[in-house]
Amino acid sequence: MKDIINCAAYSGGYRIADIDLGNVHHALQEREQFVWIGLHEPAENILQQVQQEFDLHDLAIEDAHRAHQRPKIELYGDSVFIVIRTAQMNQEHHIEFGETHFFVGKNFIVSIRHGSSVSYTEVRSRCEAMPELLNKGQGFVLYAIMDFIVDKYLPVVQDMEHELVAIEEKIFKARPSRDTTEQIYQLKRELLEIKRAVSPLIEICNRLTRFDIKCISTETQPYFRDIYDHVIRINEMVDNTRELLNTALEANFSLISISQNDTSKKFAGWAAIIAVPTMVAGFWGMNFKFMPETEWQYGFHTVIAFTIVACVLLYYLFRRSRWL
Amino acid sequence: MKDIINCAAYSGGYRIADIDLGNVHHALQEREQFVWIGLHEPAENILQQVQQEFDLHDLAIEDAHRAHQRPKIELYGDSVFIVIRTAQMNQEHHIEFGETHFFVGKNFIVSIRHGSSVSYTEVRSRCEAMPELLNKGQGFVLYAIMDFIVDKYLPVVQDMEHELVAIEEKIFKARPSRDTTEQIYQLKRELLEIKRAVSPLIEICNRLTRFDIKCISTETQPYFRDIYDHVIRINEMVDNTRELLNTALEANFSLISISQNDTSKKFAGWAAIIAVPTMVAGFWGMNFKFMPETEWQYGFHTVIAFTIVACVLLYYLFRRSRWL
Amino acid sequence: MKDIINCAAYSGGYRIADIDLGNVHHALQEREQFVWIGLHEPAENILQQVQQEFDLHDLAIEDAHRAHQRPKIELYGDSVFIVIRTAQMNQEHHIEFGETHFFVGKNFIVSIRHGSSVSYTEVRSRCEAMPELLNKGQGFVLYAIMDFIVDKYLPVVQDMEHELVAIEEKIFKARPSRDTTEQIYQLKRELLEIKRAVSPLIEICNRLTRFDIKCISTETQPYFRDIYDHVIRINEMVDNTRELLNTALEANFSLISISQNDTSKKFAGWAAIIAVPTMVAGFWGMNFKFMPETEWQYGFHTVIAFTIVACVLLYYLFRRSRWL
Amino acid sequence: MKDIINCAAYSGGYRIADIDLGNVHHALQEREQFVWIGLHEPAENILQQVQQEFDLHDLAIEDAHRAHQRPKIELYGDSVFIVIRTAQMNQEHHIEFGETHFFVGKNFIVSIRHGSSVSYTEVRSRCEAMPELLNKGQGFVLYAIMDFIVDKYLPVVQDMEHELVAIEEKIFKARPSRDTTEQIYQLKRELLEIKRAVSPLIEICNRLTRFDIKCISTETQPYFRDIYDHVIRINEMVDNTRELLNTALEANFSLISISQNDTSKKFAGWAAIIAVPTMVAGFWGMNFKFMPETEWQYGFHTVIAFTIVACVLLYYLFRRSRWL
Amino acid sequence: MKDIINCAAYSGGYRIADIDLGNVHHALQEREQFVWIGLHEPAENILQQVQQEFDLHDLAIEDAHRAHQRPKIELYGDSVFIVIRTAQMNQEHHIEFGETHFFVGKNFIVSIRHGSSVSYTEVRSRCEAMPELLNKGQGFVLYAIMDFIVDKYLPVVQDMEHELVAIEEKIFKARPSRDTTEQIYQLKRELLEIKRAVSPLIEICNRLTRFDIKCISTETQPYFRDIYDHVIRINEMVDNTRELLNTALEANFSLISISQNDTSKKFAGWAAIIAVPTMVAGFWGMNFKFMPETEWQYGFHTVIAFTIVACVLLYYLFRRSRWL
Repeated sequence: MKDIINCAAYSGGYRIADIDLGNVHHALQEREQFVWIGLHEPAENILQQVQQEFDLHDLAIEDAHRAHQRPKIELYGDSVFIVIRTAQMNQEHHIEFGETHFFVGKNFIVSIRHGSSVSYTEVRSRCEAMPELLNKGQGFVLYAIMDFIVDKYLPVVQDMEHELVAIEEKIFKARPSRDTTEQIYQLKRELLEIKRAVSPLIEICNRLTRFDIKCISTETQPYFRDIYDHVIRINEMVDNTRELLNTALEANFSLISISQNDTSKKFAGWAAIIAVPTMVAGFWGMNFKFMPETEWQYGFHTVIAFTIVACVLLYYLFRRSRWL
Repeated sequence: MKDIINCAAYSGGYRIADIDLGNVHHALQEREQFVWIGLHEPAENILQQVQQEFDLHDLAIEDAHRAHQRPKIELYGDSVFIVIRTAQMNQEHHIEFGETHFFVGKNFIVSIRHGSSVSYTEVRSRCEAMPELLNKGQGFVLYAIMDFIVDKYLPVVQDMEHELVAIEEKIFKARPSRDTTEQIYQLKRELLEIKRAVSPLIEICNRLTRFDIKCISTETQPYFRDIYDHVIRINEMVDNTRELLNTALEANFSLISISQNDTSKKFAGWAAIIAVPTMVAGFWGMNFKFMPETEWQYGFHTVIAFTIVACVLLYYLFRRSRWL
Repeated sequence: MKDIINCAAYSGGYRIADIDLGNVHHALQEREQFVWIGLHEPAENILQQVQQEFDLHDLAIEDAHRAHQRPKIELYGDSVFIVIRTAQMNQEHHIEFGETHFFVGKNFIVSIRHGSSVSYTEVRSRCEAMPELLNKGQGFVLYAIMDFIVDKYLPVVQDMEHELVAIEEKIFKARPSRDTTEQIYQLKRELLEIKRAVSPLIEICNRLTRFDIKCISTETQPYFRDIYDHVIRINEMVDNTRELLNTALEANFSLISISQNDTSKKFAGWAAIIAVPTMVAGFWGMNFKFMPETEWQYGFHTVIAFTIVACVLLYYLFRRSRWL
Repeated sequence: MKDIINCAAYSGGYRIADIDLGNVHHALQEREQFVWIGLHEPAENILQQVQQEFDLHDLAIEDAHRAHQRPKIELYGDSVFIVIRTAQMNQEHHIEFGETHFFVGKNFIVSIRHGSSVSYTEVRSRCEAMPELLNKGQGFVLYAIMDFIVDKYLPVVQDMEHELVAIEEKIFKARPSRDTTEQIYQLKRELLEIKRAVSPLIEICNRLTRFDIKCISTETQPYFRDIYDHVIRINEMVDNTRELLNTALEANFSLISISQNDTSKKFAGWAAIIAVPTMVAGFWGMNFKFMPETEWQYGFHTVIAFTIVACVLLYYLFRRSRWL
Repeated sequence: MKDIINCAAYSGGYRIADIDLGNVHHALQEREQFVWIGLHEPAENILQQVQQEFDLHDLAIEDAHRAHQRPKIELYGDSVFIVIRTAQMNQEHHIEFGETHFFVGKNFIVSIRHGSSVSYTEVRSRCEAMPELLNKGQGFVLYAIMDFIVDKYLPVVQDMEHELVAIEEKIFKARPSRDTTEQIYQLKRELLEIKRAVSPLIEICNRLTRFDIKCISTETQPYFRDIYDHVIRINEMVDNTRELLNTALEANFSLISISQNDTSKKFAGWAAIIAVPTMVAGFWGMNFKFMPETEWQYGFHTVIAFTIVACVLLYYLFRRSRWL
């Protein structure tokens, strides 16, 4: 069954029972207990059941069904609806985005994964290994999954920083090429996409840290501040890379111009060197009756020798003034 | 009759009567009932009648008569005046803007359409099909129409994103052309216009969501937050496209320069190749008496063969160093 | 008399008496009555008289005497001092700026015009034609003049939008020229000046709309909100034009580069076409004894025919690859 | 004695006694009296004496001893420490910066000048000529000196505006040169320095105007608002000049490119004109036996005449299409 | 022992005892006394001991163990956790970053150094030399170390300002080169890194100055304001250098273009000068029967003399119009 990955009740930090979605309302009536449900691209009827069991708002359920939301946090009475985008590098070094939605209430948390993303069973087992922390309730579960998601952004952004370094290498070491420009553009595009996914997280973490949300115990606020910190750092890395990328684009442009200038100079230099013998040859090609040198035995060779010397001289002159 | 599209009283979520504009004040005295009027580019006398029936402020009526307003929300005592711009793509893929004005009061809502826009009768029938929601009053009607308007922006902005992709294709695949530059400029112009229409909506939705406005029930606030979300997303798409467009303009520029450099190199290369035989020919064109090779039987052919070999050699040299 | 344009007392919305500046303090003692004085570049002694009659602050009077102030609003006890810049297009399509200062108190308003500006007698007669509105007091008079001033900005800004369209036309249709670049620069200069005059108005209107200023009745606040709206719109138009202008400058630059590339290609193409016959001619100009073709009857004509064919061929090749 | 420029007690707006720094604490005990001390780059022991006499904070005294502070305002208990940068043009049209520090307390004001700056004895005598204003206490003295300092910025900034106009002149009228680019850069550097000195003044004036500072009577607040206004205006002039300068740099760049294009065209044009006779001459230089025209009496002259006509024709063609 | 640099108890401003980390909790029970511990890249077990002795939060200890944190300040109940980045120039003129973490509580301060940084024993001995200040408690110790760290940034940033001056020199005095562009880019990269380290310090100092933090006595707030001031100044220097660097990049680009234009002109000029004799020679190389001048005794010399004169003339013409 793909839709429901896991559905269990927790009390005192320990998993006390795996329950059926249809019996969740019984579990919810128990005090000192919370339910943690993990869904993956659930069918509409599953979502409707979830809505009924937890008494969720229509609009939130509607949002949870559609992917392609903006990351956001919304309060509906006592429960919170959170949308977060996930990111990971695929095999071809392209970013794949997914989405995870959370419903957090007085004694439950529901996570719904959409699109490309890693399963959270790893998070679940990690949480279950720390009962003293899991005992802080569904707020801690929310933290654990969000932390897991945000940590996955770091390698993605570092990958981009490495690509920037590769681009720098190409700009400053290799000759200018169309590919470098396109690569800069594509990296910028990806950075903007990451930025769109990460920057709303700042506001989300900020609200989880500062505002009083009933269903999340104040004890867990320092944990969300920790995520806040990571998000700020990732965001700064993205901004940094973006600014360097803009400068790289300009530097690339400067170097193209310099290289163009070098081309012009090289061309001009060789043109001059070739033009000289042509000019000299032209002179002795004139049909005057009286051109004394033409009578000489080694006139031809002298002229040739002379022009070769002139060309070599020119070559060294241009060389010295860096035209060649 | 073009001016008044529809004028009806609603109670408990159901349309209870179609009423005449002149009798609206009777309907307004009924409790638990609200009036929904839809106008389209109304004549001045119709607007004056509306003003009298609902006791609206002079300045708001003046504004409602003129199109070309900025999107805004204004409180006049207990009633609210809202201006929103509508957008849609016409057949020639150009954006057409329209305007819709709303008067929302204790128990009435008046919508006034100007310019190019779709009729809201579709919204009306959709609302009437959901009496439990329509029962929330005129605030829900306002939401329904605004949602309809904002949804119409999405295809427009997506159309622009597609145009950006087409421009990218041209920049990185095709040769640089005047058209691409103009296309970038025109797209930027359109994005600025969309931006001008969409960005004030953020503030409007924000106020409808957060502030306490008497004539809009707090129950409908989550609905406006939903619109707020859509507007933020559209706004982000516009900003994104704009930033990529700026980078595209610069990338285009870089590629023009690279292509210029290629032209220079190609020219220089061919010039050199042609200059060599000209120079060689010049030499044997000199009128010296003693030029041993000129006496040879196959001197001419040797020279020609030699120069052809030289040219081919040059061609390969230039080829290897990417000048040709 | 140039200094004092008009000086009258109003009560219940009607002008009740034209009074002498020296007798204003009598009029001020009457209740339910206010005095409206219009001055134009007044001499120092007139301003001193005004200061004494209305008991105004030294610094405000000092400011009112000097032109070239920044638009601002300042509270001095119960009275308000406002500076606004006026703008209009002169015959040569250049913007002329003027300044108007206002002193508004419990029962008086003084307007002082400096520099190029239209007389406000038109506003006065328009106000006198609406006694029910003029009855709102000196606050309404302030609104009426400010509205008049702000409305005069619209044609100025629209004129600039038209100039931008003219510049676009030149950039995308005509060849790049020094004039276009200078025109862009001059338009930017003017836009910055307009911006400097308009943007402080936002703050001024905002304060008149939101803050409680004793001498301006709260009834007139919606009117100032109306001006606020106009100012925001004009400000947006200026920003928009400015952003497009920046893009236009860059687009212009791109097109200059493309046109440079076209020049290079054209030159290279023709150079190649001319170089071929020169090279060919050089070959048969060599002084070898045995050059079989030189003996032919029609050798010369064959060679000429051949080179013409080669040149035409080259021309078509270049034409096809868009070098010519 | 260079350190202490002046040290006097004032009461009721009049200077009542010149006092010795060692006796200041006696004067401070008198009510309705304040002490005004002017120092210029004082030695450490003088500053220590001042600290003891007025009971000032260690950190403030430490700051007062060092120059190169950022403009700032700091409250230490009942007294205020203010740092302001001064600017003036020297003979070689370069800006020279200085610094003035103020200690203002319940009944004293100490000003300390560092670096290049004009003496404030002029301000002192001007204040003493207006006893009714000087009677407002040490707050007014602070205003008088700050006003004096801020007024000195205006000619400096206007000088920069004139330099911008000179740069514009060069860009649009003269040919592009390395000097213009360097001049733009240097002006930008100076603007940034002025900006660094002026912009913190906004915050300083704002705090003097709005916050309740015990040692500065509220009566003088409108005066600081006046300085605030001047600072805002100077700041705007700087920003304006900076933005125009950026545009000027880009416009300069565009014009360099246009001029480059003109160079290319001119070169191409003349190259073509010279290439034609060379080609023609080459043809009749071929060694064919049968070239009918070579036998003609005036063949040579005909060919020369023909090529001259061809060249003149080309010249006119290029002229018409603006290549020459 | 590398981990624990120093661990001592202070009372009344004097060091009263060097204590063992295991006995710290005894020292903490004494009133009017605080403990100051300095650690350097401590092992995990040392950190755990510190956590137990001072009862610190898990998350803070986790952060303290890892380097590469963002500078931040975090409150955990009564204690504060602060992360600050340190910077210094190494021998090869590259910036080396380190990190220092602080735990400040009611009567203790723990500093933990990571990476490249100078030891704080110098700060400790300086503090111990000023018992009246050290008596202000652990807040003053925090100030002393932070001041020490921030002061180390100044030479780093000044070094960058000098590098900018060196770059300017290269741009405006020397010929454009690939190196200058790369140097600009690398400097920008370093500035961004410094910026990332410095700018969060503004917020940290601001909070230490304004907010009420129990473990830091209000007496020390003016001291943190002093650091705040330094940080603002360093931050401004970085921003300034960055803006100038951007302009330098553009100016560099302009100069490359001008230099390109000069190259083109020089090339064109010499090409024209060489083309003239080639053309002339071509004419007398034609094989017409009747070319009168060819019969002259000194025809050849006349032609050569004539072309030399023409070339010299051309040279002067080009020289005058700055093409050569």
